[in-house]
Amino acid sequence: MNTFGQLFRVTTFGESHGPAIGCVIDGCPPGIAIAAEDFAHDLARRATGKTRHTSARREADEVEILSGVYEGKTTGTPIALLIRNTDARSKDYDKIVEQFRPGHADYTYWQKYGIRDPRGGGRSSARETTMRVAAAVIAKKWLVEKYGVSVRGHLAQIGGIIPKSFDWNAVEANPFFWPDAAQIDELESYMDALRKSGDSVGALVTVVADGVPPGWGEPIYGKLDGEIAAAMMSINAVKGVEIGDGFASVAQKGSEHRDEAARDGFLSNHAGGILGGISSGQPVVVSVAFKPTSSLRLPARSLDVHGNEVEVVTTGRHDPCVGIRATPICEAMLALVLMDQALRHRAQCGDVGDVSPRIPG
Amino acid sequence: MNTFGQLFRVTTFGESHGPAIGCVIDGCPPGIAIAAEDFAHDLARRATGKTRHTSARREADEVEILSGVYEGKTTGTPIALLIRNTDARSKDYDKIVEQFRPGHADYTYWQKYGIRDPRGGGRSSARETTMRVAAAVIAKKWLVEKYGVSVRGHLAQIGGIIPKSFDWNAVEANPFFWPDAAQIDELESYMDALRKSGDSVGALVTVVADGVPPGWGEPIYGKLDGEIAAAMMSINAVKGVEIGDGFASVAQKGSEHRDEAARDGFLSNHAGGILGGISSGQPVVVSVAFKPTSSLRLPARSLDVHGNEVEVVTTGRHDPCVGIRATPICEAMLALVLMDQALRHRAQCGDVGDVSPRIPG
Amino acid sequence: MNTFGQLFRVTTFGESHGPAIGCVIDGCPPGIAIAAEDFAHDLARRATGKTRHTSARREADEVEILSGVYEGKTTGTPIALLIRNTDARSKDYDKIVEQFRPGHADYTYWQKYGIRDPRGGGRSSARETTMRVAAAVIAKKWLVEKYGVSVRGHLAQIGGIIPKSFDWNAVEANPFFWPDAAQIDELESYMDALRKSGDSVGALVTVVADGVPPGWGEPIYGKLDGEIAAAMMSINAVKGVEIGDGFASVAQKGSEHRDEAARDGFLSNHAGGILGGISSGQPVVVSVAFKPTSSLRLPARSLDVHGNEVEVVTTGRHDPCVGIRATPICEAMLALVLMDQALRHRAQCGDVGDVSPRIPG
Amino acid sequence: MNTFGQLFRVTTFGESHGPAIGCVIDGCPPGIAIAAEDFAHDLARRATGKTRHTSARREADEVEILSGVYEGKTTGTPIALLIRNTDARSKDYDKIVEQFRPGHADYTYWQKYGIRDPRGGGRSSARETTMRVAAAVIAKKWLVEKYGVSVRGHLAQIGGIIPKSFDWNAVEANPFFWPDAAQIDELESYMDALRKSGDSVGALVTVVADGVPPGWGEPIYGKLDGEIAAAMMSINAVKGVEIGDGFASVAQKGSEHRDEAARDGFLSNHAGGILGGISSGQPVVVSVAFKPTSSLRLPARSLDVHGNEVEVVTTGRHDPCVGIRATPICEAMLALVLMDQALRHRAQCGDVGDVSPRIPG
Repeated sequence: MNTFGQLFRVTTFGESHGPAIGCVIDGCPPGIAIAAEDFAHDLARRATGKTRHTSARREADEVEILSGVYEGKTTGTPIALLIRNTDARSKDYDKIVEQFRPGHADYTYWQKYGIRDPRGGGRSSARETTMRVAAAVIAKKWLVEKYGVSVRGHLAQIGGIIPKSFDWNAVEANPFFWPDAAQIDELESYMDALRKSGDSVGALVTVVADGVPPGWGEPIYGKLDGEIAAAMMSINAVKGVEIGDGFASVAQKGSEHRDEAARDGFLSNHAGGILGGISSGQPVVVSVAFKPTSSLRLPARSLDVHGNEVEVVTTGRHDPCVGIRATPICEAMLALVLMDQALRHRAQCGDVGDVSPRIPG
Repeated sequence: MNTFGQLFRVTTFGESHGPAIGCVIDGCPPGIAIAAEDFAHDLARRATGKTRHTSARREADEVEILSGVYEGKTTGTPIALLIRNTDARSKDYDKIVEQFRPGHADYTYWQKYGIRDPRGGGRSSARETTMRVAAAVIAKKWLVEKYGVSVRGHLAQIGGIIPKSFDWNAVEANPFFWPDAAQIDELESYMDALRKSGDSVGALVTVVADGVPPGWGEPIYGKLDGEIAAAMMSINAVKGVEIGDGFASVAQKGSEHRDEAARDGFLSNHAGGILGGISSGQPVVVSVAFKPTSSLRLPARSLDVHGNEVEVVTTGRHDPCVGIRATPICEAMLALVLMDQALRHRAQCGDVGDVSPRIPG
Repeated sequence: MNTFGQLFRVTTFGESHGPAIGCVIDGCPPGIAIAAEDFAHDLARRATGKTRHTSARREADEVEILSGVYEGKTTGTPIALLIRNTDARSKDYDKIVEQFRPGHADYTYWQKYGIRDPRGGGRSSARETTMRVAAAVIAKKWLVEKYGVSVRGHLAQIGGIIPKSFDWNAVEANPFFWPDAAQIDELESYMDALRKSGDSVGALVTVVADGVPPGWGEPIYGKLDGEIAAAMMSINAVKGVEIGDGFASVAQKGSEHRDEAARDGFLSNHAGGILGGISSGQPVVVSVAFKPTSSLRLPARSLDVHGNEVEVVTTGRHDPCVGIRATPICEAMLALVLMDQALRHRAQCGDVGDVSPRIPG
Repeated sequence: MNTFGQLFRVTTFGESHGPAIGCVIDGCPPGIAIAAEDFAHDLARRATGKTRHTSARREADEVEILSGVYEGKTTGTPIALLIRNTDARSKDYDKIVEQFRPGHADYTYWQKYGIRDPRGGGRSSARETTMRVAAAVIAKKWLVEKYGVSVRGHLAQIGGIIPKSFDWNAVEANPFFWPDAAQIDELESYMDALRKSGDSVGALVTVVADGVPPGWGEPIYGKLDGEIAAAMMSINAVKGVEIGDGFASVAQKGSEHRDEAARDGFLSNHAGGILGGISSGQPVVVSVAFKPTSSLRLPARSLDVHGNEVEVVTTGRHDPCVGIRATPICEAMLALVLMDQALRHRAQCGDVGDVSPRIPG
């Protein structure tokens, strides 16, 4: 199942070290202005090879629009985007062609399909997420232009480090998408030490959508939060998803959690902008847990395809903390979910109406 | 979207206080022995009205099989199950017909559809989950008979209380699905005090599937964990889902998290049985965060449908901790996901094969 | 696959001689006024037992609305409709429980599922189409109220008899949905003779949708004509579907077939209102070929479930020409397709716009 | 909706005069041997520019495999195929950029999307069908290797000309896929005269699948014949589809139509291999009606995008009979439907079993 979305459908293809990766976007509204250059900004935010804190692989990530756009505008027909892979170094993987790397999908792909492309992790590589970010560029554009909906994200934890202050303006000004400018030095040192140790660490990403109108989401099995959860969990290395207060709700009292409202608006947002699977008009807040990268220089025990016990050491180029670059990917998935739900909402209920009373978000 | 699943498709219908609830199960393999009595056990585990710690509503929950079963066996045609509502007390809701209860879906349904059935929460009531449990009875039966897969669950936290020891045998022997028999008195007292206070509390449920063969799950957008996340998040009051170590992974090192393997089997299960979206053969472990019930006797501020500020007090019959009865519902959703993925796997790859080497789970 | 439609989704269930038949309609727009009585008219048009020219089975076909309607209006949640079977006479089928009736689905269901419900044809009975007609009542209502789209149909051929004149007013005034009032006596005699002979005959049904706005239909694999073809072919006994001139196009020249247009409108409608899979604004015209009923009193050669050769004679109650009652069923399917496409169109392109120039239909 | 199939899902993209056309095949079983050369044969059968009886456009139709194949075998991940357009002559279309060509999709795309790519018909061009033929190469390979199912087709009528004898061996030996070698001269003359006249003509294509096991097809709304009808109707210029005797069934008696069976096999195949939407084990026989090409040198009345009446003359390069090259396209669609149904069947019912008794096809 390589298609995401019910009505704004993104089908991705491509392996880490194959000739190309790409996607087909089907169901896109006509008339959206889009050009190849529009993809550059978000793809660069996701790209490796720009700081020493991410993998050294450098891909140009140049997007070719193969269809669906005429004279600079979407036509309603499928939009195919293509990116050639240019910096794959498959020989890095020679050693592990026959080994199942612990914590990786090597063994499970092998068990499922009886065959796998081991070069760079093949289809299970995070290289695939490039196309999600590309597709979401179109979704983000439509969401903001048509409904004033914007999506942004930040890192909320690396290992044991948590932001001490919060400033959206800081987020894009450092390589960690970190909201506290005063902690950047600490993070640099932490990551340098981690890289030297050959180990890796997990991370927490938070994404927020502002301006979402009330009413998006399809009960019961197409709930907004349900689809967000699936979307985030589909990202490589994700082990948990929560909406609003999430797991903290477990220890809360009802009198504390439920968000009261007055004519001026809601008095809190423990729910993270979603009630009964439908957006409330408050900001949609999602947090995503990333496990530490499994590709380590530190040796580990495993088996090979012949059933022999082996000691696996992963060289190649890897992120010591995959969560860092995951921020734009989480944004992308949230944007794709919202775009899809927007179309589904107007299919059943017509465009966003003026149902009253409207509680300010 | 009231259908769950791609190939084992469960479509539910019905409102809390409507004449009936029901479901249609499509895509079910033929030849499964099933009778009306088979549903009783799991429905009773989910039912209210059996202890003072859940809602006082008492429903007979008698299942009528309307189609798809002939001479005691499924025929491959759609199976319709029907349960008449018998203990709805809609007049409890008279006061709130025009009020938006904080933390409930009242406002969001109103904004989405411009109309809502306020009786007992209408479609957004957890009454709907009865049919998930019913449908999962068939899935559980098939999974265990055909593949030896079993699904079970337990409560892992209520408010701030955490089990001090763990025993699967204890779980079904108390009304809390609690794994530590020694804490039952404490929980009873806690819940009694909570109920008297008019407040509610959150809970954590953990469900585990044993015997899942390696290879189930469809990368990239139909991953086993992605579909589990969506499934759990579709349950009323859920605010978070995690697989294996989940959010704890954020603070872990890669050397700690990645599960090594030897010929005798995996050496740990931080991954919760899923790698790259595909089952590894280890137990699938899922934890689900439930928020505290929003229906409280304690007054709260909100608006009514005319835009006036109101003070909402919820009488009616409610669970002080919805998470308690959620254990069989979480099991049901996990079973439905696994059944669906089993069918999807054999569609693409044929039946579960004997790909070697197989690492013991 | 017992669900029809992508966004206006109708899932039917039930066997010919089971306790009930029913359907769940999901994705229905909220706010449509609907009551149990609304179904009576179209169900009566489809019903057997009203003239000697159809099967003698008499079903009350009383619709119970189980969900999705509150205070007389659809709420956007799934609408479940239930009809109890009251006049099933399963003992008529005793003889053929173990026989494969020629021209029936007995053998193919057996081969597919390894089990079948033989009573009255089980799931393969045309009894199932009752629910299509019921579901389409809601679709027809919405289509005419919101867009002014109306759907109607008539019989266009029985055996070798073809209408000599055409009058829509005649169609509902005779039991054959026949457009030429002067031929009714001829048809009565023909059908009486046929019934006495124990044989059956095929028929041709034509359905027309007026007022369809230009723009409905989703290229390439969700074309309006593609979905109509699937919809019609899903009806029992259908062997062919054509749009507009259909098979007659084979012998036509391009200069004859292509519909020219002037400012006042199109100059012809060979295309049957669809070009490139999208409605043109002209009437949508569909013809459907029904094979003769396979249930005959005349003996035929076949096998039984043990592999023995047998002589099959079908008693029971059957239509000598299934095509007659098929007219409202074909209308229903056309309405369901149009409703679904209307929702899909407004999802991607917004509501029906005022793209100019608009050529009168 | 540019995706065909439920489990073997083919998503196509690309415009007639865009940089490329392509497709993504998702859900393909792993382990199928496939190479770029495998596509050449069928693509050549579909290609234009090879005889004077088809359009003069000459495309190399070289397939690049972008993903999903590793060391010559499918891996179970999405297979992306790309063909660059090399012989598009968009200036041929300058005149009609603002005109709605009669019988074409120009007007309906304009009305649906408010924008259209007029170059060569854009997305509505039959150029798209190239990718169906490419995708079906994989399906055909799997069907024949795994189940012994083969698909082939022939032209059954051009204008008023009908084959006088039938020989499968003749079909591939002439440019018309015509089964009667003795008529080729007549057809050549007919087509030459037609081309000179500037007019076009319709055609009838028949495709047959041999070796289909009994049991494929999903009642009620995923019937084998329903999906075939949709598949064929999705091909450019198709106006009608019939299974087995099709429209001829209208004038038949039941005693004539129903296919009797003996231990040695079925005694006839009026049903065209499908009963109740499920394959019977007999050959699946489908006929498809193609309208005459609408692109003519003969002038026709229409409007332009400003609402002015215009006289349209189509130059460019066109087929005087689109039905001729449609034979491999119809084969492709039948193969895609069968492959998809094969996967769906084994999902629900397991692999093709040995249900007895089996009636020889």
